[in-house]
Amino acid sequence: MRVLVPFDPRDPKSRLAPILAEDERREFARAMLTDVVETVRGTGVTPEVLVPTQIDVPGATTHVDDSPLSPAVNTLLDEISEPIAVIMADLPLVTQSACSRLFEATGDVVLARGMGGGTNALVTRHSDFEVDYHGASYLDHLETAERCGASVAELDSYRFGVDVDEPGDLPEILLHGSGRAYEWLQDAGFQLVTGDGRVTVKRTRSVNDVRTIET
Amino acid sequence: MRVLVPFDPRDPKSRLAPILAEDERREFARAMLTDVVETVRGTGVTPEVLVPTQIDVPGATTHVDDSPLSPAVNTLLDEISEPIAVIMADLPLVTQSACSRLFEATGDVVLARGMGGGTNALVTRHSDFEVDYHGASYLDHLETAERCGASVAELDSYRFGVDVDEPGDLPEILLHGSGRAYEWLQDAGFQLVTGDGRVTVKRTRSVNDVRTIET
Repeated sequence: MRVLVPFDPRDPKSRLAPILAEDERREFARAMLTDVVETVRGTGVTPEVLVPTQIDVPGATTHVDDSPLSPAVNTLLDEISEPIAVIMADLPLVTQSACSRLFEATGDVVLARGMGGGTNALVTRHSDFEVDYHGASYLDHLETAERCGASVAELDSYRFGVDVDEPGDLPEILLHGSGRAYEWLQDAGFQLVTGDGRVTVKRTRSVNDVRTIET
Repeated sequence: MRVLVPFDPRDPKSRLAPILAEDERREFARAMLTDVVETVRGTGVTPEVLVPTQIDVPGATTHVDDSPLSPAVNTLLDEISEPIAVIMADLPLVTQSACSRLFEATGDVVLARGMGGGTNALVTRHSDFEVDYHGASYLDHLETAERCGASVAELDSYRFGVDVDEPGDLPEILLHGSGRAYEWLQDAGFQLVTGDGRVTVKRTRSVNDVRTIET
């Protein structure tokens, strides 16, 4: 199994701008990438990070392609003849055990849904399968697999389902995470707030405050 | 395995009030309950619906207890000596296969997380385990199980993870559902809207419009 992890370091996690400054979003996105890389490495596979410009990713190799996400992934799907997994870089809840379920699921194509119709991870063992991450990509990928005549397994996983894009996603990391992204949020002063509905987060201090204290 | 499904028909799904009228919320909540009841029945178990006032639930038996949710569940956990599952009534994505994973997971206590720290489903085989659904109940239930000396299995399931409380949850039903709640939303004119981020829903007509046409 080869494992691709697409990552774009340019203006990462823009939907978190209401609560994180630009440098914070960059650090936080790297923390999530590191979590995914370390988790995949724990399964015995060296992940291959797909980036638009060369960056150093400890523990991973890189492919540089400045095409948009879907064509960049499809170029590699075309080039590689082995089974390939594509795992998003913003899945800090993913565990080795969840990865093993993904890799071991039986199907020409294995799909793991993300919140709001995304495809947070997939495996393809079918040479005609291509990705298109725009819109409700999960439904599109089901259709594409069917059109290829590929058998499909749908992975029922919460840990793959939670991609972190919006402020409302942060509680999930503090509730169920344990890696770098979890530590980053804690260090940045985020805490869980419980009430009658779903748990939310509040920030007790900003990173800038902390820096002020340190100087 | 006994299966409890708590359901409160009084002012159900109040957080959907911005987009559904009161009678619609009542119908929609019943549609979701029906989905859960039929799915559990498909696994060969007759669900036991826990209600504050007697209502008729086809395909299920009922327990009437007007105590708040947690004490009402705990009373039944005390009374029943067999393994018991407690499954929330607002989980329209749950399938028989997801239920089988829940029932077959090995542990004195099995927990399935919901978005925002909830516990959308659990199994207990330990006589000392009690529920408390307030706040970040998932973390509390982990602690309670540990305090009891119960072994814990955490079920990694997206289908159990999606409870439908807020307008932002409705796309998940149109994306991944197939039962009564899915049909109800379609009949009520809800459609998926795709864009750059997560999929959302729009309503092309209200139920009241349809009624006007029919008269």
